[in-house]
Amino acid sequence: MQKKLSAPTLRRLPRYYRIVCEYYERGEEYIRSCEIAGKLDVDETQVRKDIAAINYSGKPKIGFNIGEFKFHLENFLDLSRPKKAFLIGVGNLGLALAKYNGFSNYGLDIVALFDTDPQKIGLKVGEKEVFHVSEIVNKAKQDNIKIVVLAIPGEEAQKMANLVIEAGIKAIWNFAPVDIEVPGGIIVSNQDLAADFVVLSMKLNE
Amino acid sequence: MQKKLSAPTLRRLPRYYRIVCEYYERGEEYIRSCEIAGKLDVDETQVRKDIAAINYSGKPKIGFNIGEFKFHLENFLDLSRPKKAFLIGVGNLGLALAKYNGFSNYGLDIVALFDTDPQKIGLKVGEKEVFHVSEIVNKAKQDNIKIVVLAIPGEEAQKMANLVIEAGIKAIWNFAPVDIEVPGGIIVSNQDLAADFVVLSMKLNE
Repeated sequence: MQKKLSAPTLRRLPRYYRIVCEYYERGEEYIRSCEIAGKLDVDETQVRKDIAAINYSGKPKIGFNIGEFKFHLENFLDLSRPKKAFLIGVGNLGLALAKYNGFSNYGLDIVALFDTDPQKIGLKVGEKEVFHVSEIVNKAKQDNIKIVVLAIPGEEAQKMANLVIEAGIKAIWNFAPVDIEVPGGIIVSNQDLAADFVVLSMKLNE
Repeated sequence: MQKKLSAPTLRRLPRYYRIVCEYYERGEEYIRSCEIAGKLDVDETQVRKDIAAINYSGKPKIGFNIGEFKFHLENFLDLSRPKKAFLIGVGNLGLALAKYNGFSNYGLDIVALFDTDPQKIGLKVGEKEVFHVSEIVNKAKQDNIKIVVLAIPGEEAQKMANLVIEAGIKAIWNFAPVDIEVPGGIIVSNQDLAADFVVLSMKLNE
């Protein structure tokens, strides 16, 4: 990574990438920052700043070459290198995430599922087998897994986080509706769905 | 709403609220901006700026009074007024969202579910009944629904969005992995889960 980008910029880049992929599939050759801005409800100046921040530039009045821009984003966001992850919690949300087919384009490869429910152990979701969580420490070390997706109830989340960190996990994507606290050096992203709703709701009120 | 806040600030406020609620439940009296910053991996100056932007202030060296701050956030974010919404798509993700118990604290009240699968019509998820999508236009008008949660496959998302907008829907929370385009005056929030993963993954690479 060339330099540290702000979190909001980093959040927007994959969205630019999605649009660029749509243009790529349609066989378009160029995209302009105003088109990206229009599709995402982001200010055009912001779009230009974000793209400049990853050291890419377009042609004046023509825009960004789709093929080049796509390649640049893939490299910058490290999308082509698969990142293996474990998913814990095979409830509705866990199943939805395990089956979600949009992750692989973004480098996320959920390779195994974990739960405590004896009825779920041994089941398969696509290619992914469900194991008992008691196996997670060994399996994470064996497969050199650094990322865990947590789709378990809030009251179990912190305990599970502590367990997987012991197993060498470096990044936790937490869908439980609680903030998880982790030691320094561990990355946690609390996916607070309710918070995302509030943003929508506030805009509706404007 | 007093003034228009930036989207990143707006996204952080519900997260502050969640922490404030945790402190409230534990019977704490005050919280300091550095504590909030530490829990959320946000810069302390940013926390202070965000809170100042909603016209709230704490006591120097003591912090924010929990009860007052909680009340102020609830008012500002309009959390206590329930916003009725329809959810379309009763797959795994739709079920997870319909059952998610963290939404009500944030004002979201999913009152009915819609699907096209005849086997699902008439089922109940908790108190919520599943109707056929063909009923959505009438029902939205009847119940004066302004918000729809879309948890359907990407290829159906735009068509469904067009349909619900005709039914008078003003805000769409889209979980399908495509960007939806809407006419002016309609709010859409594309919940791009894969994009959120990229942010986590990039931080892990740093």
